[in-house]
Amino acid sequence: MDPKAYLEEKRKIVNQALEQYLPSPRKRPRRLHQAMRYSCFAGGKRLRPILAINSFELVGGKGREILPAACSLELIHTYSLIHDDLPCMDDDDLRRGKPTLHRAFDEGLALLAGDALHALAFELLASTGNLRVVQEVSQAIGSQGIIGGQVADLEAENIDVSPREVRYIHLHKTAALFRVSLRIGAILGGGSSEELIQLSRYGERLGLLFQIVDDILDVEGESGELGKPVGSDQRQGKATYPSVWGMERSKREAERLAGLAKKGVEKFGARAEFLYWLPDFILTRRG
Amino acid sequence: MDPKAYLEEKRKIVNQALEQYLPSPRKRPRRLHQAMRYSCFAGGKRLRPILAINSFELVGGKGREILPAACSLELIHTYSLIHDDLPCMDDDDLRRGKPTLHRAFDEGLALLAGDALHALAFELLASTGNLRVVQEVSQAIGSQGIIGGQVADLEAENIDVSPREVRYIHLHKTAALFRVSLRIGAILGGGSSEELIQLSRYGERLGLLFQIVDDILDVEGESGELGKPVGSDQRQGKATYPSVWGMERSKREAERLAGLAKKGVEKFGARAEFLYWLPDFILTRRG
Repeated sequence: MDPKAYLEEKRKIVNQALEQYLPSPRKRPRRLHQAMRYSCFAGGKRLRPILAINSFELVGGKGREILPAACSLELIHTYSLIHDDLPCMDDDDLRRGKPTLHRAFDEGLALLAGDALHALAFELLASTGNLRVVQEVSQAIGSQGIIGGQVADLEAENIDVSPREVRYIHLHKTAALFRVSLRIGAILGGGSSEELIQLSRYGERLGLLFQIVDDILDVEGESGELGKPVGSDQRQGKATYPSVWGMERSKREAERLAGLAKKGVEKFGARAEFLYWLPDFILTRRG
Repeated sequence: MDPKAYLEEKRKIVNQALEQYLPSPRKRPRRLHQAMRYSCFAGGKRLRPILAINSFELVGGKGREILPAACSLELIHTYSLIHDDLPCMDDDDLRRGKPTLHRAFDEGLALLAGDALHALAFELLASTGNLRVVQEVSQAIGSQGIIGGQVADLEAENIDVSPREVRYIHLHKTAALFRVSLRIGAILGGGSSEELIQLSRYGERLGLLFQIVDDILDVEGESGELGKPVGSDQRQGKATYPSVWGMERSKREAERLAGLAKKGVEKFGARAEFLYWLPDFILTRRG
């Protein structure tokens, strides 16, 4: 298996499924459906759904049964980015090189498009016929999951925070959704509880790694490759790994997490080829 | 049964259950949990959960099993009010006589508190062990349900719209949640498909009635009793029943809907005493 080709192949499958699940832009209310699609098809990497699919396959799941749940994770990720970009949050004008939704449409519609993607995610999750995945996702994205991290992130702006606090923010804001993506795949694929534990741990490490690299790229990246201006974290006084630990230690921590993530899935052997490859790919990403 | 006493008794039960389901304000992130509670305990009538409970009991359901699903409807109602009040939507300063959430806290936190209530609602729905209720609610509140109505509502501001369009807005923005409240109760109570049809129809009529009365009170009500300024619909150029049909015809339509709603539940006899009483109660409400 060529992991890059695998990534590309699954991305296409996810995009086709999203195309099918999102309401037609010709259906009422048209502007809302156009707005939902604008953000969903703005060039996302589809990392979370692909992780769910890979985890599903790793534990022995077969076929397309995983796609509704996998796509629900992308809808949730997109809704949280839309709300995060709003003027009352990070007030960002660009996302992946395109105007953010509230810039391309308007604020009210962006708010509602986020809400509609949130609801649609649960419609897809319910269609799996598995209540546990509804429960797991609702907890991962709630006040003690993603949203808890976003609140802590806002509260940490322009004040001195501890490395421990930054870890709390990143674990909740970012790692919780990676973790639950792996879990959903393993649950729907019929994985054992031991597999579930290993894959959850992997997801958490990968999520932390992803966020640290994100923080580093915001300082050292190229605006063109990132699709947004660099240095925005510093301008907004965000609590990041580089801001509390310095750049050198942040990079060492990213490498340490990549090593831990890989080590944790070694025992799965060839089944985990993609998961073994991914941490280094994330470590060296440029955008 | 005294319907007013019933309403009061169930309201207390719903409030106690909400108190239990909402995360403690002493748990992290504290301000978020405080914000969620501020809006949930701002004096809501609990009409939607009480309708779910009554529908559950009417078809033969017993005990407290209905409470998580019933409360999920109140969380969804509250989240949609919080987002509706934001500056990029209706920009309201008062709700039920108290500052709206973004005035009492701040905009970013209000946005996230709404999102967190949305997620918590699905956590409660998943805890019922019944996937159908997750599916029904996600559809009722999505882009072709409540949110569809809110978008149409925004798009209808300051333009001439037809009575048909106002009906579309009210059916989606308001009646969809009333309808699904009755449905959830009937589904979890084990109602027959005939009972489900009758109760769905009742919910839709009651929801439309509720919204028309709301529109009328915005013109003729007393600010003190409403807990918000009167005349805000007109100032915002909202499409309402009085604005497209005039006051007299709006009142006749409200009476007609109340009559239809009552007639539809006559066949349930004494079991539907509360539902038979409620339309007239809504018709004569002042706040």
